[in-house]
Amino acid sequence: MENSQVSRMKKMMLRMKIQNTLVRQCLGEIIGTFVLLLFGCSAAAQVKTSNEMKGQYLSANLSFAVGVMSAMYLCMGVSGAHLNPAVSLSFCVLGDLPWHCFLPYSLSQVLGAYLASGVVYTMHYDAIMNYSGGVLTAYGPNETASIFATYPTPGTSLQTNIFDQVVGTATLLLCILPLSDKRNRPAPDALLPPIVAAVVLGIGMAMSSNCGGAINPARDLGPRLFTLTAGWGTEVFTCYDYFFLVPLVAPLFGALLGCFFYQVFIQWHLPNPDPDTVESQSQDMEIQLKVVAL
Amino acid sequence: MENSQVSRMKKMMLRMKIQNTLVRQCLGEIIGTFVLLLFGCSAAAQVKTSNEMKGQYLSANLSFAVGVMSAMYLCMGVSGAHLNPAVSLSFCVLGDLPWHCFLPYSLSQVLGAYLASGVVYTMHYDAIMNYSGGVLTAYGPNETASIFATYPTPGTSLQTNIFDQVVGTATLLLCILPLSDKRNRPAPDALLPPIVAAVVLGIGMAMSSNCGGAINPARDLGPRLFTLTAGWGTEVFTCYDYFFLVPLVAPLFGALLGCFFYQVFIQWHLPNPDPDTVESQSQDMEIQLKVVAL
Amino acid sequence: MENSQVSRMKKMMLRMKIQNTLVRQCLGEIIGTFVLLLFGCSAAAQVKTSNEMKGQYLSANLSFAVGVMSAMYLCMGVSGAHLNPAVSLSFCVLGDLPWHCFLPYSLSQVLGAYLASGVVYTMHYDAIMNYSGGVLTAYGPNETASIFATYPTPGTSLQTNIFDQVVGTATLLLCILPLSDKRNRPAPDALLPPIVAAVVLGIGMAMSSNCGGAINPARDLGPRLFTLTAGWGTEVFTCYDYFFLVPLVAPLFGALLGCFFYQVFIQWHLPNPDPDTVESQSQDMEIQLKVVAL
Amino acid sequence: MENSQVSRMKKMMLRMKIQNTLVRQCLGEIIGTFVLLLFGCSAAAQVKTSNEMKGQYLSANLSFAVGVMSAMYLCMGVSGAHLNPAVSLSFCVLGDLPWHCFLPYSLSQVLGAYLASGVVYTMHYDAIMNYSGGVLTAYGPNETASIFATYPTPGTSLQTNIFDQVVGTATLLLCILPLSDKRNRPAPDALLPPIVAAVVLGIGMAMSSNCGGAINPARDLGPRLFTLTAGWGTEVFTCYDYFFLVPLVAPLFGALLGCFFYQVFIQWHLPNPDPDTVESQSQDMEIQLKVVAL
Repeated sequence: MENSQVSRMKKMMLRMKIQNTLVRQCLGEIIGTFVLLLFGCSAAAQVKTSNEMKGQYLSANLSFAVGVMSAMYLCMGVSGAHLNPAVSLSFCVLGDLPWHCFLPYSLSQVLGAYLASGVVYTMHYDAIMNYSGGVLTAYGPNETASIFATYPTPGTSLQTNIFDQVVGTATLLLCILPLSDKRNRPAPDALLPPIVAAVVLGIGMAMSSNCGGAINPARDLGPRLFTLTAGWGTEVFTCYDYFFLVPLVAPLFGALLGCFFYQVFIQWHLPNPDPDTVESQSQDMEIQLKVVAL
Repeated sequence: MENSQVSRMKKMMLRMKIQNTLVRQCLGEIIGTFVLLLFGCSAAAQVKTSNEMKGQYLSANLSFAVGVMSAMYLCMGVSGAHLNPAVSLSFCVLGDLPWHCFLPYSLSQVLGAYLASGVVYTMHYDAIMNYSGGVLTAYGPNETASIFATYPTPGTSLQTNIFDQVVGTATLLLCILPLSDKRNRPAPDALLPPIVAAVVLGIGMAMSSNCGGAINPARDLGPRLFTLTAGWGTEVFTCYDYFFLVPLVAPLFGALLGCFFYQVFIQWHLPNPDPDTVESQSQDMEIQLKVVAL
Repeated sequence: MENSQVSRMKKMMLRMKIQNTLVRQCLGEIIGTFVLLLFGCSAAAQVKTSNEMKGQYLSANLSFAVGVMSAMYLCMGVSGAHLNPAVSLSFCVLGDLPWHCFLPYSLSQVLGAYLASGVVYTMHYDAIMNYSGGVLTAYGPNETASIFATYPTPGTSLQTNIFDQVVGTATLLLCILPLSDKRNRPAPDALLPPIVAAVVLGIGMAMSSNCGGAINPARDLGPRLFTLTAGWGTEVFTCYDYFFLVPLVAPLFGALLGCFFYQVFIQWHLPNPDPDTVESQSQDMEIQLKVVAL
Repeated sequence: MENSQVSRMKKMMLRMKIQNTLVRQCLGEIIGTFVLLLFGCSAAAQVKTSNEMKGQYLSANLSFAVGVMSAMYLCMGVSGAHLNPAVSLSFCVLGDLPWHCFLPYSLSQVLGAYLASGVVYTMHYDAIMNYSGGVLTAYGPNETASIFATYPTPGTSLQTNIFDQVVGTATLLLCILPLSDKRNRPAPDALLPPIVAAVVLGIGMAMSSNCGGAINPARDLGPRLFTLTAGWGTEVFTCYDYFFLVPLVAPLFGALLGCFFYQVFIQWHLPNPDPDTVESQSQDMEIQLKVVAL
């Protein structure tokens, strides 16, 4: 390349550097949620299509945890690595994310999850076709829809599934908020990703038997949209009495409940680090008021 | 909201900030033990009611470990995260917790465990009913009581179970005391939770086959009380010759034994960090005398 | 020994200290890849020859992860612990490794993998002979070739396997590049090995069902060459329509794709640490241009 | 207690504080190896006597790893936490442990392992009796000797087992020596225990199918002596053609081989931290000469 060409390309690249913070953050959330779902759904596909010969239920839980860890290291420095609209909502309420970012963040997360589902489908296309006999369905012993989105176990009621998703997401927030609370005994910043991954692993091992443990509207909606477009048909939305609404809505309430419990049981009563932080305390309190008001 | 309203709510909240340290600590122990049991019992329910299709024995052990880690990050800055009356008793004897805190701490831990059992029961209600055929019992192939409290394996004698709980809890203390002993080679403070979690995982994998590896009176009594009130009946206390007394009492002795062994084999003989700590050494020794006296 | 003898030996040893950096680095890559494959293939042998009685699919994944961690601690200070020609190629493109090092690094990695396969074969010779009935083959229920190299699952097409290896290796690079990117939120340097190990574990659990998840030309070619020389015959190269070319070539493209995605989605848009780093940014950009050019 | 009594007891305790460093170190190794074997053998007992209902092969591997971690935190500050005569021998050769400590260290390790076996036997007495039908033997489907010591898999030759133990222990040393080598890229001191535990987990998952993966003469001899005295009879020593000699002797050679490989491939060629360390380098070299001489 000639020198002039190089300097022209450099200028072009400088212009390509995204100056708008929100766009940058959205890119971060897209690629982060993409990696989370790539690990998670691909492991689910591996376990199911191999009839548990190449992994078991635990491997899928573990793989989601690895996805959380990797995604956090990937985009924590750019977007905070929420990866979950329920987490973004909580951070809006807690004042750590401006409200106008909530929708762009959430849509980016859904988009990342959708794209990852596409890659997982392409990657495991042969295996999914072999396993399902070519019939893509959300019901029966050869169903493959649960590789992507979550579906309830037959015999669980709607109330149970709502309660399950609320408790699961509340647990998630209750466990990750103290990790970076400087007034509590926080975890090392650079090791947040593996610790949050362990929490997600625990929720997968303990709270996924009723309806798959989505605890994340984007993790569920993105792949569900993908299966709709890829041939599973509208039953992925209509089946089990429009179950898809549960992992879409319940986690949002669960997350707020988790924030509320953390504040009531722990944060309100933490000693202040030093006396001249009265003002910041006052700000904290306004945030807490908002949570209570909700 | 008007300004006057806000300032009135702020004043109210300032009054809600709990000034009494012990009450604050008890809140911490309640929510901490709640989280510990939520992870642990919920995983036990998932493994049992799914007939090991959605997790195995190891998942339940791992989930208890995640519960320990999460609970410790949650309340370590408030109450020290004992989560276990046997640990609280040890810290009383070692002089790290005033004696008058022992009973409030223990009751808080039992309460947290009780509440978690309620949430786990509600969450897995459908699955428990399906699995048990609606008959809540502590005996037989469809028993579901062991999701909550611990029960002995048929064929193990009373002495075996007492020995099991004493050794298990002694191991726990022997393994966690050095982690924060500045004169030994301690673990990083901010990483205590995952390391203690690994110890608890090890005890679950190695010492839970006789009688469930409670090593914690609150972890056992809280859920047992819950099952009593939720329909399993008095057999949860009377079965296996009043077995419930074993995980209630034996861990207390085990914990003291663990402290004693740590002191005799390691702590007494550690070199002093520097000469002007003679006084603190003298204090240490008084504590050690108390342990010996017991 | 007499004094003169000692000083003569010392002089000899000083001469043995390798002054040439590249030779030293190659030694590091040889022993590092040796350790990686020793853990990985030996676990594969243990799982297969014991008919999953002494470990399961997950143990083999976990063992490869331990191998990555151990190998990285072993040679990171000497050669950077690439352990994988696809990683070395990426670092050449990114400017972290001079281009003339690429071939020596890659050959060292293949050599280390070859040597490890020899040790694994000797170690598990009796078990392999018992399991295979003495017939060393790459086909059928008693095949043992997959202990060493990777082979596709019957029913997966060539395109699927190529896509699988490209995506797997892209995921690897996408997940490890941020870990040491100072402008992002990097992991602690001294804990890179266990974190990279977790990423490799995740890829094994999620992306190894199609064709074994090599994501590393040396990890596949070294053991395959060994099986060729040890009695499995030329079918290890010819079987499944010369499948061996897929894990040999596809990971190289996948790695570049991973670098490209990391740059496009994250790195280009990261804020600069401080204004006087314009020059280094300019250098970065030249590197990025090269990636784009490819 | 009266004041005079207290001061008398204090004086007594000051006298009880062991002044002799070696005795103190031996106490550390006893309790450390005790904890290692307590976790390891107890998990082996749980897995075997529950017919893999309460854990699987992987749980026993994991439990040994937890034992290593716990034992290291327990006695690293006192004795260095060798827990293994093969490690002690290596550190003698490398000049980190005086030669006169080798025998006391090794005997302490065997004693700790013996005592742990006793506790494990008492704890699982009922289960062992149920499982074995009361016949304590080292052969057949109901054998229980392998809970304690290691035994070869039928069909493996003597040479295979010797090679297995040499390679396993060499791998151990090759993987742990770099972790604290300041001239290489060492692991954080306070996190050595979990990292070494992961290495031991890997060896258990990858190199224990031939003959149990002892890689530690004390881990094998202590429990074997216990089974001799507890009723399994002399067959624990005579069976499989005096197999017990293999895990007793081969790990010592393996450990030296591991040190040698680390030095030849890595340590000799590491750059010196700064020029005025020539003297220490000279000392290093004398140590290296000794290794070569062996």
